[in-house]
Amino acid sequence: MEQRISLVTLGVDDLKRARAFYEALGWRGQEIEETVFFQAGGLALSLWSREKLAQDSGMENASPHGFDGITLAHNVRSEAEVDHVAAVAEAAGAHITRRASTTFYGGYAANFADPDGHAWEIAYNPGFPLADDGSLAVPNFDTR
Amino acid sequence: MEQRISLVTLGVDDLKRARAFYEALGWRGQEIEETVFFQAGGLALSLWSREKLAQDSGMENASPHGFDGITLAHNVRSEAEVDHVAAVAEAAGAHITRRASTTFYGGYAANFADPDGHAWEIAYNPGFPLADDGSLAVPNFDTR
Repeated sequence: MEQRISLVTLGVDDLKRARAFYEALGWRGQEIEETVFFQAGGLALSLWSREKLAQDSGMENASPHGFDGITLAHNVRSEAEVDHVAAVAEAAGAHITRRASTTFYGGYAANFADPDGHAWEIAYNPGFPLADDGSLAVPNFDTR
Repeated sequence: MEQRISLVTLGVDDLKRARAFYEALGWRGQEIEETVFFQAGGLALSLWSREKLAQDSGMENASPHGFDGITLAHNVRSEAEVDHVAAVAEAAGAHITRRASTTFYGGYAANFADPDGHAWEIAYNPGFPLADDGSLAVPNFDTR
């Protein structure tokens, strides 16, 4: 098995609302068969009915119940960019779950939940530099 | 806000068990400060204490409760590869939630839950070809 994630699909209760939220963040996607796909680097973020996604995954659906158990991080290049994206997200209706502040790993981050409760972190992490194309390479900790 | 996901962090109850599972799938990662990072294309999949991840995300932790509301897809290049990865995952202790079968979108997929209940789909989707480096580009549906 190669090491990759091809799609991250978020189960949503209201596709229109969810798409409008990500578009208010500046994302642009395409809708086909009641699924919205956003290109996100070398993978896609997609939005689909939570009920259908659960069924398709062979799992029993459950109401959103606090923390999903998964957090998606969007890393940026400066503390100012964290503040900016957090402000845009709040204006778009995100629930800010942690105001921007310094982190234990020497960075700076803010956290929010999207309209369906999915957890995001907006982070500046000087130890994990981003390439020009936005991709992230895990540093080699053994040689630091 | 640029369109990217930098990290997908899975909250886990037992880091050793979770790491061993992904290594049995063939993934190779690095552990630092009780977090395991796996390079996955242009982003990282990371494993961290579910309790700490919830706290760090500013959300109240909740016991795993059926479906997370998020499914991660690992796309492959053939039906045979779906069967192979599903067999490797099952041997590694995954709970197979849907046996490999044809899908409504004209592909072929199997689904499993990892030891912490996180949902994965292993999919062959002829409509979403993979590049040589494994990356996925969402096709332009408007012009198909």
